[in-house]
Amino acid sequence: MASRRARDETPRSDKWRARRDEIVDTSAHLFARGGYHATGLTELCDANGLGKGALYHYIGSKEELLAAIHDRVMDEVMLGADRVAAAGGTPSQQLAMLGDELLDVIHRYPDHVWVFLHEFPALTGERADQFRKRRREYERRVEAVLRDGVEAGEFRPVDTRLTALAWLGMHNYTYLWLKAGGRLSARNVAKPFAEIFVRGIAVPAAHGAE
Amino acid sequence: MASRRARDETPRSDKWRARRDEIVDTSAHLFARGGYHATGLTELCDANGLGKGALYHYIGSKEELLAAIHDRVMDEVMLGADRVAAAGGTPSQQLAMLGDELLDVIHRYPDHVWVFLHEFPALTGERADQFRKRRREYERRVEAVLRDGVEAGEFRPVDTRLTALAWLGMHNYTYLWLKAGGRLSARNVAKPFAEIFVRGIAVPAAHGAE
Repeated sequence: MASRRARDETPRSDKWRARRDEIVDTSAHLFARGGYHATGLTELCDANGLGKGALYHYIGSKEELLAAIHDRVMDEVMLGADRVAAAGGTPSQQLAMLGDELLDVIHRYPDHVWVFLHEFPALTGERADQFRKRRREYERRVEAVLRDGVEAGEFRPVDTRLTALAWLGMHNYTYLWLKAGGRLSARNVAKPFAEIFVRGIAVPAAHGAE
Repeated sequence: MASRRARDETPRSDKWRARRDEIVDTSAHLFARGGYHATGLTELCDANGLGKGALYHYIGSKEELLAAIHDRVMDEVMLGADRVAAAGGTPSQQLAMLGDELLDVIHRYPDHVWVFLHEFPALTGERADQFRKRRREYERRVEAVLRDGVEAGEFRPVDTRLTALAWLGMHNYTYLWLKAGGRLSARNVAKPFAEIFVRGIAVPAAHGAE
């Protein structure tokens, strides 16, 4: 968290932050369309209506901009996971709520999520470490719910890591087809997905808690 | 299929084809590491040990090279689907076999699959149409197995399109972590994935065929 804290502790006005957020959003759109490496500074400046000096004033570097896009996604995803933890309920309910929250982020931030899933290998050094740490932190939340379910006799004794990866794949992959204004809302998808997944790992009713 | 047939019907030697396959594989590695747009012709020539003229003799254009990488993946995936159809069995068994075959391709072609999943928006015109058609053709195979299962009373009356997308996500997303030489083989993953998915859509045993 060192680099995020350092950034967050710099005293900046609300106006500065709002403008920076705008730049992050606009740039996420550019990166999603043209790719991170292929999108040049000139293009970023033009799209944001800023000169190079002004752009750097807000973002520091192109890679910091990429990290900020990743942070936007992870901030939202972790907020969702916190809401789920606060809501309580059975492991099955927790897993369904996690899916609801995750698909909501994917639905609301299509460009950011596209960049997040495609361009993370372009992060280097501390930014790459930070990204991996946050991503792992979220994965651990999913794994913890699965473990709780196994311990409570609600889920079969599955490999929680592998099962979390299956769950993440099923949900994350919706970024390719879950579109704002499309046939399906995030909730329309989250509900049947939760039904498949929870039934898939549940201890069969006929056998009771085995 | 027009453009593929046109290419395939050009009389070419086995040696020419083998060299072209090598170029496709080497270039898939480059595109997977650096991105399609950011990888220049000079880099492609250097990696393949060819001048520009010779490279064009084998691949025609950079976009045709990208299309060839997509074709390699789709050829393997469709061959797998054909083997599954020929093998017969219940819809549950068919779905498990499809997963086995798909993860095997992802495991054997990590670079090609990375490029396939990340760079398909760079295909244009007829190549883009062709790619969408073949991808859709595979998705229809998965949907058909699901529909057969619903009709046979083996699966719940799920939305077969949405359920196919859930299944594809769960399996395709393994490209991020299913590595050759890693902890898990394709089969080690395919089996528990099939258990989750088939149980997830099965008609509950206690209720019989409802």
